[in-house]
This record gives sequence, C-alpha cells and structure tokens, in this order.
Amino acid sequence: MSTFGQFLRVTTYGESHCPSVGCIVDNFPPGVPVSEEIIQPQVTRRRPGQSSITTPRNEADIVSIQSGVEGGVTLGTPIAMVVKNKDFRPADYKGDTMKQYPRPSHADFTYLEKYGVRASSGGGRSSARETIGRVAAGALCEHYLKLAHGIEIVAWVSSVGNIHHIPPTPEYPSTHNPKFLQLLQEVTRETVDKTVVRCPDAEVAAKMEQSIADFRDRQDSIGGTVTCVIRNVPTGLGEPVFSKLEATLAHGMLSIPATKGFEIGSGFEGTEIPGSSHNDMFIRNPNSDSDSKNGFAKPKLTTATNNSGGIQGGITNGAPIYFRVAFKPPATIGLPQETVTFEGETDGLLEAKGRHDPCVVPRAVPIVEAMASICIMDALLLQGGRRMAVLAP
Amino acid sequence: MSTFGQFLRVTTYGESHCPSVGCIVDNFPPGVPVSEEIIQPQVTRRRPGQSSITTPRNEADIVSIQSGVEGGVTLGTPIAMVVKNKDFRPADYKGDTMKQYPRPSHADFTYLEKYGVRASSGGGRSSARETIGRVAAGALCEHYLKLAHGIEIVAWVSSVGNIHHIPPTPEYPSTHNPKFLQLLQEVTRETVDKTVVRCPDAEVAAKMEQSIADFRDRQDSIGGTVTCVIRNVPTGLGEPVFSKLEATLAHGMLSIPATKGFEIGSGFEGTEIPGSSHNDMFIRNPNSDSDSKNGFAKPKLTTATNNSGGIQGGITNGAPIYFRVAFKPPATIGLPQETVTFEGETDGLLEAKGRHDPCVVPRAVPIVEAMASICIMDALLLQGGRRMAVLAP
Amino acid sequence: MSTFGQFLRVTTYGESHCPSVGCIVDNFPPGVPVSEEIIQPQVTRRRPGQSSITTPRNEADIVSIQSGVEGGVTLGTPIAMVVKNKDFRPADYKGDTMKQYPRPSHADFTYLEKYGVRASSGGGRSSARETIGRVAAGALCEHYLKLAHGIEIVAWVSSVGNIHHIPPTPEYPSTHNPKFLQLLQEVTRETVDKTVVRCPDAEVAAKMEQSIADFRDRQDSIGGTVTCVIRNVPTGLGEPVFSKLEATLAHGMLSIPATKGFEIGSGFEGTEIPGSSHNDMFIRNPNSDSDSKNGFAKPKLTTATNNSGGIQGGITNGAPIYFRVAFKPPATIGLPQETVTFEGETDGLLEAKGRHDPCVVPRAVPIVEAMASICIMDALLLQGGRRMAVLAP
Amino acid sequence: MSTFGQFLRVTTYGESHCPSVGCIVDNFPPGVPVSEEIIQPQVTRRRPGQSSITTPRNEADIVSIQSGVEGGVTLGTPIAMVVKNKDFRPADYKGDTMKQYPRPSHADFTYLEKYGVRASSGGGRSSARETIGRVAAGALCEHYLKLAHGIEIVAWVSSVGNIHHIPPTPEYPSTHNPKFLQLLQEVTRETVDKTVVRCPDAEVAAKMEQSIADFRDRQDSIGGTVTCVIRNVPTGLGEPVFSKLEATLAHGMLSIPATKGFEIGSGFEGTEIPGSSHNDMFIRNPNSDSDSKNGFAKPKLTTATNNSGGIQGGITNGAPIYFRVAFKPPATIGLPQETVTFEGETDGLLEAKGRHDPCVVPRAVPIVEAMASICIMDALLLQGGRRMAVLAP
Repeated sequence: MSTFGQFLRVTTYGESHCPSVGCIVDNFPPGVPVSEEIIQPQVTRRRPGQSSITTPRNEADIVSIQSGVEGGVTLGTPIAMVVKNKDFRPADYKGDTMKQYPRPSHADFTYLEKYGVRASSGGGRSSARETIGRVAAGALCEHYLKLAHGIEIVAWVSSVGNIHHIPPTPEYPSTHNPKFLQLLQEVTRETVDKTVVRCPDAEVAAKMEQSIADFRDRQDSIGGTVTCVIRNVPTGLGEPVFSKLEATLAHGMLSIPATKGFEIGSGFEGTEIPGSSHNDMFIRNPNSDSDSKNGFAKPKLTTATNNSGGIQGGITNGAPIYFRVAFKPPATIGLPQETVTFEGETDGLLEAKGRHDPCVVPRAVPIVEAMASICIMDALLLQGGRRMAVLAP
Repeated sequence: MSTFGQFLRVTTYGESHCPSVGCIVDNFPPGVPVSEEIIQPQVTRRRPGQSSITTPRNEADIVSIQSGVEGGVTLGTPIAMVVKNKDFRPADYKGDTMKQYPRPSHADFTYLEKYGVRASSGGGRSSARETIGRVAAGALCEHYLKLAHGIEIVAWVSSVGNIHHIPPTPEYPSTHNPKFLQLLQEVTRETVDKTVVRCPDAEVAAKMEQSIADFRDRQDSIGGTVTCVIRNVPTGLGEPVFSKLEATLAHGMLSIPATKGFEIGSGFEGTEIPGSSHNDMFIRNPNSDSDSKNGFAKPKLTTATNNSGGIQGGITNGAPIYFRVAFKPPATIGLPQETVTFEGETDGLLEAKGRHDPCVVPRAVPIVEAMASICIMDALLLQGGRRMAVLAP
Repeated sequence: MSTFGQFLRVTTYGESHCPSVGCIVDNFPPGVPVSEEIIQPQVTRRRPGQSSITTPRNEADIVSIQSGVEGGVTLGTPIAMVVKNKDFRPADYKGDTMKQYPRPSHADFTYLEKYGVRASSGGGRSSARETIGRVAAGALCEHYLKLAHGIEIVAWVSSVGNIHHIPPTPEYPSTHNPKFLQLLQEVTRETVDKTVVRCPDAEVAAKMEQSIADFRDRQDSIGGTVTCVIRNVPTGLGEPVFSKLEATLAHGMLSIPATKGFEIGSGFEGTEIPGSSHNDMFIRNPNSDSDSKNGFAKPKLTTATNNSGGIQGGITNGAPIYFRVAFKPPATIGLPQETVTFEGETDGLLEAKGRHDPCVVPRAVPIVEAMASICIMDALLLQGGRRMAVLAP
Repeated sequence: MSTFGQFLRVTTYGESHCPSVGCIVDNFPPGVPVSEEIIQPQVTRRRPGQSSITTPRNEADIVSIQSGVEGGVTLGTPIAMVVKNKDFRPADYKGDTMKQYPRPSHADFTYLEKYGVRASSGGGRSSARETIGRVAAGALCEHYLKLAHGIEIVAWVSSVGNIHHIPPTPEYPSTHNPKFLQLLQEVTRETVDKTVVRCPDAEVAAKMEQSIADFRDRQDSIGGTVTCVIRNVPTGLGEPVFSKLEATLAHGMLSIPATKGFEIGSGFEGTEIPGSSHNDMFIRNPNSDSDSKNGFAKPKLTTATNNSGGIQGGITNGAPIYFRVAFKPPATIGLPQETVTFEGETDGLLEAKGRHDPCVVPRAVPIVEAMASICIMDALLLQGGRRMAVLAP
C-alpha cells in the first residue's frame, strides 16, 4: 500500500533508480495559500550531504508542484509533487559482491521473496529516498495545521547509541522529569537545527556528533531515537478503536525505514509506575476559550501531568502529544561481513563501498515531523466532518 | 474507524452498556472448517474473573456465529459473531462522584470532547469490553493460519512493573540473549497458561503475581509488557512503504486499550548496538523446501541472528516475528484522587468503587494474539493476490 | 466487499439460511435522536408478503439495535442492527432438481465458481434477504438527512414491463415533460404507498398490478424500473473524479440484486437531444438563503431546467437529484426450464416450487431509497469535513 | 476521491491548467514486461485533434513512466506516469463573458459551491483532460489482462443522437439480436478504428459522422452511447453485495465526465421481457478446460443466451461482459445562451469561443476501455487473493 490516511490521503511513488520520486495529496482543503517555498525547507532538511556525519551524496531534491494549486492558492483538488532523481550513481551500489549477495538486514532478500524480481537498488521502495514524497506531503499538512490552529510540530534527536539527551533517573524514571516537560513546551525547530545532529542541547549534541563520527571512522554505524512533540492540538481528534490517534501515529512512524519502536507519553517506562502516580489529574484549563478557531474551541479542562502524551482513549485531550521513535543502526557498513549468495550456496565476504549514513536520526527528524503532520491532519479532517454533522440546536 | 485490515476486514461494534458486542469478518476464505468451539477458548481467556488478580466480574461471554458458516464450513461470505452483554451493573460505575467528574486518564473527558454526548460508561468504545469482537475475529484468523501454514502465535507477559522475565544484561543488552532466543522457538500457549499471570517462567510468574496482588491490596495498579512471537510465517508478507508489516502490527497493538508502546525485534535497546553487531547475517536455511504449502515455499536463506524480528524492509524473511507491547497501569484505582468536574469549576475527590483489574497484562495476552493474527492474515491474503497474479512462465 | 461508503460506512452480513442478518453503521453522527421505530417502517416496506403480487413469505423482520444508541440518542459509536431469520423453510428451495442444477440467471453457478463451496441457498449473499441490513442502515441515514437538512427521498415504480408511468413522447422525448417535472417536486411516500405496486398514478398502478398478476398466473415474471428523487440536497456534495455523486449512486444502485441499469437526469434519452436544448440555464434562485442550516446555505443560483439531474461535474447543484434503476424479471419462475447439472453432463428440466416474486420493483422501492440515503449521507459527511477545514477569514 | 480500486489502486491528479496530469498505479503485479510503447497508443486514441469532428487542439500527450519499471519489467512497486500539459491556451476559455458567468451544464458553479475557489478552468478536475491518467493506467491493466488471460476489451460507438448502430426491433427488442451477439464475439479495436467516429459499421459510421458535422456546423452538440465488450474473463470475478462487478463497472463508467447512464446485459430493454425469455439457460461449455491459465480454469458450463451480460449475482460466469454507457451532448456550444452571473444578479448572453467537441463519444471509447480494464484487473487480483487462500486438499 502506497497510500496513507483515510480522509487526507497521501500516495507516494518512486525508488532510488528511476526518473523521479513524488506524491499525490488528495483532499487537501481548498483556499490555502501554498507554494513550493512552503514545501522545500523540510525536503532540504531531509536530504543527505548536510554535514560530515551524513552521507555525502549531493542530491538537490527540488520540489515541483504539478497540480492542485493555482494563483498561489490550493484548489481542493489533488496536489501532485515531484522531485527528480538526479544523482543515481548505481555503480556504487552494484559492486561484484553486491550482485551476488543479499545485504544483511537490508530488504534485498525480502523484496526478491515478495516480488520475484531483482531491482538494481535491492529493496527499492525501502530506501530512504522513498521518504521524499512523504516529507513534501507532510510539509504541506504542517503548513495548514499552523495556519488553521497554530499547531506546532517539532522533532529532535533524543539519543544516539547510549548517549541520551535526558536519560531516566531514579527520581524521574519516566516522563515526569521537569527538564523534559519544559522542553516539550519550549523546543523549536530553530533550536533543534543549531546542531548538525539535531539535538537541542548543544553539549549533548557535541557528544552525539563525536560518537557518530567515531562509528563512521570505524566503518560501523549506530542507532538512536527521535522524540517529537505536537502542541496546540484541538481536542477530540482520533477515531476510537482501530484509528486511535496513537495507533495511527505508531503506524506512520513504523512505516519509516529503519524504525524498530514507538512509545507515546510515558511509554515503556510508564509500565513500571503505579497507577496512582501515572494518572493525569484533571485541572481547570487556564487557556480555556469557548470562541472557536476554525471550528475547534479550547477545552475547559487540562491535566496537571501528561503521562498520557496528550491522548486518552485514542482521542486528543488538548495537552501536548509527544512520542519517541527508535531507529536501528544503518545496515550498510564498510566493515566486511560474512554472507551467502541469494542461492544460499557459497559463503562470501560483503564490503559496502557506497555512500551511507553512519546514523540516520539527524535526517530522520523531518521525516518523523512529516508523518506526524499527516496523521494529525487526517484526524482533524475526520473530526471536522463529524463536528459539522452534529445537529444544530 | 471500526474496521481493521485491507483485504481481511474486521469491523467491531459495541460498548459496555448495550445488548451485545461483536464483529463482522469480511473476506475470510471459503471452505475452512469453523465452529464456535474454535473461537470460544480465546474469548474465554480474555474474559475477567479468571483469578484473584483479575477483576471479579463474571461475564460468561459466549460467542455465537450469525452468518457465513454452513455445515461447519465457511462460505466465503461475511462471518458475523455476537456476544451478549449479560452483566452490565452500571451502578458500580456511576456513583455520585463518577457523574460529576471525568475519571483521570480515562476517556470520559475526551469522548465528551469528541462526541458531545455523555455515555453511561464514559468512554464506551475505549472499554476493554470492546476487545471481545477482535478476540473472536483473531481466533478465526489464527485457526486459519495454523491450518494453512502451521503458523503459531504465542504471547506472554514479559514484565509486570519492574519485574522482567528476561531483563537486559551488560552481556546481552538486547535480543541476543540465548535464553530469550530459545524461548522464541519453544514457548507454547500451554506453558504460558500454567500461571495465572501468563508468564512462562513459574518463578518469575510468582513474583509478578505477588506484585500485582500487592498493588491490588494497596488499591493501586501497575503496568507491564506483553511479548508475542509468530512462528512459521511465509516470506514476502507485508506491503512496502505504508503497510510495512511492523507498521500494521504497531497500528494493531496501539489500538488495544491502555497500550503505550511497541517495539519489534531489537527495538529500543537495538538503537544502542553498533550496526556490525546488529546486522543479521544470512545463512543457508536448513529447512528450505521448494515444495509450497498452500502456495508459499520455505526460502533458501535464513539469518544467523534475528535482531530484525523476522521483518526486513517491512516484509517477512521467514524468521520468527517477535515484538513487545507496553501497557500502562490501569487508570481505575481505589485510592482517592483529586479532580475537577467536567465544567472545571469545583475540585473534588474521586474514589472508584467499581470492579477493576490491578494489572491488565494477563488478560491482554489473547488480545495481542488476536491483533497479531488479523495483521498476519491480512498481509497473507494481500500477498496471495499478488503471487496469484504473477505471469506463469 | 461488504462495506459501502468512505466516511459513513455500512457493513452488512447474512444470507437466507443463517441465524440473522444485519449491519454495522460506522461514523454516524452523535447526538441524533434514534430508536427502532425510526428504522422499522422501511424494513417493513421491504419485506415480502405485503400483497398478492409479492411473495407470500411472512417474515416478521423486527429490527433490534445492538449498540451505539443510549437513552434514545446516538453516541457516535458504531450502530449495529440485527434482524433474526425466522422463516427459513429451506426445503422449498431444495427440491431434487434444485440440488443438481444451477438455477438459470441465478448466482448458484457463479458462487460455486467463486468460492468452491455450495451453500444451501445457492448464491446466499445475492439473495434479496441480504438487503435488510442496507434498508435498516438507509432508514437511519434518511432520518438524519431529514432532521439536519430537510432532505426528502422518495422512490416509486415508474414502469412494469412495457407499462410506463410517464412514457417518452415525441414532444417530450426526455425529462422535459412537465408532468414528470411536477412529479419530482410533489411526489411523497404516502402517495406512492397508496397502491400495492407503488406507482403514484392510481390508474397506471392498476394496469401494472394486473400485468404482474398475469405474469404470476402464467408462472412467469416481469421486470420494471424504479425512479427516485432526492429533494433539498445541499450544494457541493460529491467528490470529483472517482467519487462523483452519480458514480457512487450508480454503484449503490447496481449493487442491489437484479438491477441491470442506471440513468441520472436525462439519461439515455438525453443522448439524443442537442446540447442547446439539453443545457440547463442558470437562473437566480428564488429560495436563496445565506443563513446556513447545519452549515450549508441555499445557493444564489438554480437552473431553469434539470436535465443534469441535480448533479454537474459530479457535484450537487441544489436542484432535485433524480435517477432511474432497471430491474430484470426475477429469475425464479414456475415454468419448467431446460438446464444441465453443475457437472454439465446431463440435461434436465428445472421447475421452481418455492415462493417467489413475479416482479421485484414494488419491494425494491425502499431498497433504492436506502442506498440513495447512504450515498447522500456519505457525501454530506465528506463535504462537511472539507467545509470545516476551510480557513476562517 | 482521486483513487479507484481496492487492490489495484489508481490515483490520478491534474487539471487543464497545471504543469502535468498523471497517475500512480499501486499493486500492479511484478515481472510484467512494460514500456511506454504499451501505454501510448490508448493515450493517443484519447487525445483531441484526431479528425474534423473532434476538437482541433493539438495536444501531444506523451506518456512518461516515472517509477516501478526497471529493465523493461515491472518491479511490483507503484508505477507513476506523467503527461505534460503543453497547450494551455487559457485565453480561449476566459473571454469576458466566461469570467462572469457560470457556463450552463458545466461544473463551474458546482466547483465554486464545493471548494469556494474559482479555478481558471472552471471545474478543473471535471475536464476531459483529467481522464489521461486513467487511460494510461487502463492501458497498463489491459496489457496485463491480455498477457495473463487473453482478455480482450473493445469499446465502440453504438449511437450518435438518434442514429443507432443496432436499434431495437419488434423481433429483437433487447440483446437477443443475432447481429449484436455476433458483434460481441467478433468486434476488434482495428475494426472500430477504421472510421473516425469509431463505429464498426462503416455505413452507420458515415451517417454518424455526418450528423456530428451537422451539429458542429450549427455550433451545437449531440450525445451518444458507447458499448463495450470484455471477452475471455475468468469466472468468479466480482465481490458480492457492494462490489458486485456490475456495480464497480457502473461506478467506473459514471465517473467518466459527461456520462448519464449505464446498462449491463439486457439493461433497460430487459425490464420489458418476461423472465421465461430473459433467463440464460445453462449449457455445457464446449471450451471447458480444467488446465488453468495463470490460476483460473475454463468452466464446465456456459449459457445459451447472455442477457445477464456475463455477470450473475455480481460475479462473472465466463460469458462475454457487455455494457452500454450514455454520454450527454457536450455543454460547451457556440450558440449564444442566456445566463446569469455567479452572483445571480444580471442576465447575460454566453457565447463559447473555445475549442470544443461537438460529440464526445469517439474520444470516449478508449476511456471506457480504460475504466473497464481497471475494474476487471482489480476484481481479478481480489479473487486471486481468495483463490490462493483456499486450503490445499
């Protein structure tokens, strides 16, 4: 399935070795001021070659809107966006050893098992390049969410290997840490982008950058986590049962290449805390406002704590949504690895010569933001349809 | 959305205070021997009142097949299943305090924000009772998966609070622990059910049970995790990009009430391991078999390790799939909690008098198995459609 | 696929020989006063045994709401509805000849080809009984549409065999006939139900009834058409390209058993009229009203004629929507028919002994209304979601 | 909704006044030899400027495959196709009068009501240009259907105004006409393309062409019908209830701009024939073959007549599928038409100066074939998934 979303539908296409990658965004609202300048920054943040710790491929990745926008305003019709694939360099990927051997922990083997066809890029659609379409679509959604509801979506690198930005402590084993709670309120994309590693704490970021450089120099790789916060979300978003908002967020995040885990609010650590401490007490919302902005009012209540991560019973309660995503160490490494051929008949040694990221999390930041934007926008449109259908008194 | 799945579609209905709960399973294959006896055991494993550490409600929960089965064989038409709601006892939930106050970390507040209607059960569809329909549907799928491909799905309680069945160690920080790897191969539902807490290690289970009893006695609650393994899965399942198998599994799991996290394979711990150690080397598959069983052959390759959790690039590689799901401590506790009314105007004290589970993970085991079964079955049918469409040589 | 609709989703289950038939209606708006009394009348209009020209089976067909309604008001959660199958009498359908031979122009043969399983009812889900779930769901939608927007949906029998209510004439070859245009404005369900054949013109109805009786007495059958009008539809409903409103209406109508054709507005006759005569000129709308009712205002323009049938470019223009549906003569007839066995090996003679309708159109009237209601409601919710998303000025 | 299909999903984008139009085809089978040469011919057949009776716009319409194909073979990943919009000439459409007045029977008014935004093309996505994406996608599907099952899809112009290719006669009021039945077996695309009007009977075609020329010269327009046959369809395609094959065909056909009606098999005429004459008697299939071609065998039975149009109970029976689609006279005509402004305030006269087709049916032929191909392919993949899931004996 190359389509995500129920109301706001994003369909992507493209792999590494084809003329272009892109997407079609269907059911985007009409009358929204939009141009490529809105989209390009996130696509640029995603592209490789931004620093010495990301793969040096210089992909220009210029977004071009094909449809659905006229005179700088959306028409309400599908918005197609295309990014040309400029810098194929397929030879890098296809050394002698590459041809015979499925790369370990890549999708070469599983794509062959699934489709029965060997693509030059191995598992083409599992490549990071596929994510360009989503980032473009996400940038569009994010733009709308900001305009319509002042929604802010910011992701950052919360760990690289065992270097954690705000590690659990005995006093704050989970999300009660005041430093973390303050970060949720204050973190901005500008702060995040101050360091190449995209961690908002310069000191920690320096350690992370050094660690990534070390893994790069050892021709090895390392994983990490990205945390994301969504502020100013209206209440009532998320569809019960199978489209709980945390479920669609988890779906969106785990659809990003190289992800291995997702946790919302208190997450895995929250399983070790008693309910009496974990429960989020309701309090009067100091920012309550019955005047609606684009149809959604600010609620009367909020919570004193936020272990729920802004979602209760699958539905937003108005508090910040935050979640964390785990990214494995990239599978492509320079170190030689023992392997077998596709036929399983001979053993061999695989040495990746291509360009590769020693750690994906810095570049994953805009991808996480994109999928978050798409999820929230879809939930917003669905709830809007319901709200609009309520009988007038 | 009350429907899950793209090809095999499960639609559920019902909340705590209505005549019945149930589901419609669409596109289930024809010609499969099926009866209520196949379904009932998992529904029974889910129901409350099974031990002193689960809520004492005695819900009989008898499944009745309404359609799609004739002469003990599926017709290929929708299979509707119904379970009557016998034991409402709404008074328990609706003491004076309950009426005025939204329960903390429940869905009372968010359901009201979403729908503008107060149901007697608060957040009705967010209740555990809603899961009966999924468990029935999952049992049906599991039955098919076993018959057609010998697929085995087993979940168990891997932690309660800070009591972990197999905790990470300095030597085995992640999923390389041989004890864990052996468990993946060997664990059965029978072993799991030997203890009321549903942990396959009797000694650890006793500690977990004691811990739950302690929280119960303190009128408090505690969270935990459930781990699930799926064995004998054909290769090639999972649809790239937005329907990667780990993404739909994450979606399915996070749609279960009270879940806060999901990790597949090496998960969050895997982010701290170098790629050179994390990569799963391909080896010849000793069980390779080109004779297909119901259309799927056993592959030529397998992996020496399994940090991938049986999925690479979103597609199954034939190794066991395993994942872990985090469940928060139940929000309903006997301890008094400070709160405010729905109007946010007065403070008060909330004391739950109803029946409630001090820890949900033992009863969550069959629900996790159910959602896993539905995910795998859906992916299997989609891949079957693709396989069938490949041009004959 | 047993689900219809994108936002408002109706899933049905059940065939003739199983405990019950029914449906789940998902995403119905919350806060709508609903009870079984709202649903039952249309289900009753659909059931057999209403007159001497319909099949004499006395199916009580009592609708029971299972979920989603509390205190007489919808919760916004799935509404499940069940109707028990009381009067199976499978023997009627399964005489000796029936067992060996696929009934001509029935679905016995195609169901066997599709599923490889022989159900006692032949093509179970193709039976008219399957439509009960839709009629119940449609009644629910119709009730909402009336409350929220004053929408009126009325269908009637426009022809039986070659007896047409308002046949084309040289002067009015198509839909310009003033008598027809007046009917569109005035016809009510009460007028329609004055005759058992459900044609609003008593004189024509008498001829139709006589004709059906004649076919019945000859143990033969005859087809007919049902015309349907939808008044007071807001503008802007219908999603361009693949969900044009006429396309989803056509889909809904052709999903009714025994249908062979659909035409909207001027339809097939309209293909023979010059564009200069066919075009609907815009005029000022005398009922224009910028005050919106439940979010939709009455437009400034309307059209002098209505060959478009209320839909232009797939989107409603506020004029009455009207369309016509063709129903073939029922395949089950008492006359002996030459046939072959399922194996194709021996010729034989098939004589239907069961109860059967000599003409389905009178009972098809509420089914057409139901599918129309579901289509309009789905389009309304989708457009509501879009409208709600438009940026406030 | 810009997506069509459940398994094989086609998403289109683009309107007249944007850089390109195109589509993404998802879930197309892997390993199929494909190139632009396969796609281009149908796109070329669709484009304007092919004769003096079609609009003289010279749109080159060159299809470019962007993804999903490598080394001339499909990868199983999404196939994106793009056609640049070369010849905008928006001035033609935007004379003074055009700006103020909604064109009668166009989508200008309804698009404005729906989206609240005025596009330069009026109802952009309702333009014939949008259909390019579908024709490209349909050509791809048709290519597969031919390779895998020898399926042949041929459409032709069956009427222009009141000039019918094979009109009903008293002897053959419906589809029993031997001339018509023979045509269903024999008609080819080559025969159809021998005349510019695309009617396979040269004599009738000449009359049709003359009639269209007359309407063109009078600055008026005329409608017509297209009939389509699909031969060699496997049995068992079509999903009961809401995705009956005739329902999805009707949906697909009514989603084509300017369509007003659809009938399958005996259609509207069939409603006037007694069941005893309408029923299709089963006979032994002389071409029965239990050896399957790509998984589907030729059935043991066929029918002596084919009033069903190859579909019974929504499922294919192996006989040719045929249906007829009504196209209204084009709304854009040179004759002056009285109208009002968008504001409804002043009356005026509208004179279209742009290029326009006096009759759309010749160019509609490949569009009908495209939608038919997509419908059949989707049904084939769905049934393939089911067939593959049947338990091996």
